[in-house]
Amino acid sequence: MHSFTELSTSFEKDFNRRHFPETPVNLYDAAQYILRIGGKRVRPVSVLMTNELFDEIHPDAYHVATAIEFFHNFSLIHDDIMDKAPLRRGMETVHMKYGDDTALLAGDVMLVAAYEEINKIDFSRLHAILTLFSRTAKEVCEGQQLDMDFEKKDSVTIDEYLHMISLKTSVLLAASMQMGAIIGGASQGNQHHIYEFGKNLGIAFQVQDDYLDAFGDPEKFGKQVGGDILANKKTFLLIHAIDVANEKQKADLLQLLSTNEEDKIAKVLAIFKECKVDEWAESLKEKYFLIAMKHLEDTAVMESRKAELRKLAQYLLQRES
Amino acid sequence: MHSFTELSTSFEKDFNRRHFPETPVNLYDAAQYILRIGGKRVRPVSVLMTNELFDEIHPDAYHVATAIEFFHNFSLIHDDIMDKAPLRRGMETVHMKYGDDTALLAGDVMLVAAYEEINKIDFSRLHAILTLFSRTAKEVCEGQQLDMDFEKKDSVTIDEYLHMISLKTSVLLAASMQMGAIIGGASQGNQHHIYEFGKNLGIAFQVQDDYLDAFGDPEKFGKQVGGDILANKKTFLLIHAIDVANEKQKADLLQLLSTNEEDKIAKVLAIFKECKVDEWAESLKEKYFLIAMKHLEDTAVMESRKAELRKLAQYLLQRES
Repeated sequence: MHSFTELSTSFEKDFNRRHFPETPVNLYDAAQYILRIGGKRVRPVSVLMTNELFDEIHPDAYHVATAIEFFHNFSLIHDDIMDKAPLRRGMETVHMKYGDDTALLAGDVMLVAAYEEINKIDFSRLHAILTLFSRTAKEVCEGQQLDMDFEKKDSVTIDEYLHMISLKTSVLLAASMQMGAIIGGASQGNQHHIYEFGKNLGIAFQVQDDYLDAFGDPEKFGKQVGGDILANKKTFLLIHAIDVANEKQKADLLQLLSTNEEDKIAKVLAIFKECKVDEWAESLKEKYFLIAMKHLEDTAVMESRKAELRKLAQYLLQRES
Repeated sequence: MHSFTELSTSFEKDFNRRHFPETPVNLYDAAQYILRIGGKRVRPVSVLMTNELFDEIHPDAYHVATAIEFFHNFSLIHDDIMDKAPLRRGMETVHMKYGDDTALLAGDVMLVAAYEEINKIDFSRLHAILTLFSRTAKEVCEGQQLDMDFEKKDSVTIDEYLHMISLKTSVLLAASMQMGAIIGGASQGNQHHIYEFGKNLGIAFQVQDDYLDAFGDPEKFGKQVGGDILANKKTFLLIHAIDVANEKQKADLLQLLSTNEEDKIAKVLAIFKECKVDEWAESLKEKYFLIAMKHLEDTAVMESRKAELRKLAQYLLQRES
């Protein structure tokens, strides 16, 4: 069994090359550009890890991993256009560097390239992988649409937010893991457990992401703390705070949302703490972490094979054990 | 053998239904909306026709035809965003009706839906159809990028324009026809001829489109004559006119391109006629029509089976025989 780091190195070695033709220069340079911005490649490496959970890693896992990374980058390019985001990982976003139109097209060819990678796998698995891939692709688009819809809604429930964020971020990790399991020859039952492991891990990770944006250590977190608060983003924290706040706190919160005073972050955080939103978020993250781990536990393979996935889960959720 | 009209009716009967889930409402209503705007459905019906050229129509041909129509509409939605087009077939474009962001996502799910349709076909053909589909999808994106690049270039050669317009418009018709041939069990050689038939027919059609925009009868053409001239669009006509014009005509043309005087269309048309651009365009269209027909002729099936495709070609190119 290989560790996340070992498989990450192995994936990068395979992935770190030009994936697109030379011309049209603008189009394919834009597509190649975002791949160089990098990231932790958690999703593609998960494909390799869940393949190895069941069997030796098959070359098809690298094709699927590449497809997943292409898909992820397709969605980043298009989301950044919609969000008008200037930066990603400290680098100019594709649409800022190449213009909206070329970025739109670069996203499109990236999505097509994802399907091209999938088409390289053994035909015996092609239908199953394609089915899961396309279903997931649509769900991710649905999640982005719901996210935009929510920005315009006055109130969103925790369940609605959970549904949206699952689609927008968790199902891709879940599907990556199930695809690895499919390639590893896993049974339907085991595939289900691995999908749910990935999905719940993804939700726990998102709760943590929302938490860290508000309560994280700026130096460790690597980005401005309070960004979500400044942008009035409906997060787990804000939605829950509005749910549990008393009349005075709720009025204060809504008033703060409508302004941009200098100490907005500090004031919102103070209300969050009064409402114990921080403790609640930690317990929510723990809840989804435990659901995820239960699904890993219920997966019918030897315990020793699960060690690296356990470590990955703990690493992603910054847990000591 | 069935006529274009018969197969068109058959395709519409199969296609004319809701293809997307109910929610998120915005996203899927936007996707469904453009499908209702319609069109002649030449590409999907071509899949059925070229299937029937070789064999009885297989249900897979309907899946592929639907995928092709989805892909075409994906590219229309995204192109309309890029072109900031307000109308399509007299109806509001998707981005005007639903906003740029939802239109972008609606295009994305439409592309995914195309792959979902392809994934419904028999696995024995899945790899071949997917390969051709993805190659073509990338080419169409490349064509759109080149088209945008050309808008910013001072001069474009006929060969460059031909390459761009082939990618942007002809390869999809060509691929539709080859996919029908694949489903019909055609040999590689016959597939090649059918692809080239579609590709050259598409080029001839585009030459005609450029021609009619300048010289067409407004009542028959159904849209404003001279639209390309007003927009300074680099068309077959303009590129050739600049190529063959004398110094005075060229200077006049370039001056006209830099202005928007009231009689711009009339003055440009006058120069086009002086340069015999109209005659040249008719001969160019004829050239590609003949190449297309030669490929149909060289396709190794009984002559009688080719009759409906011949009629389609004549119908598309408004030829009497």
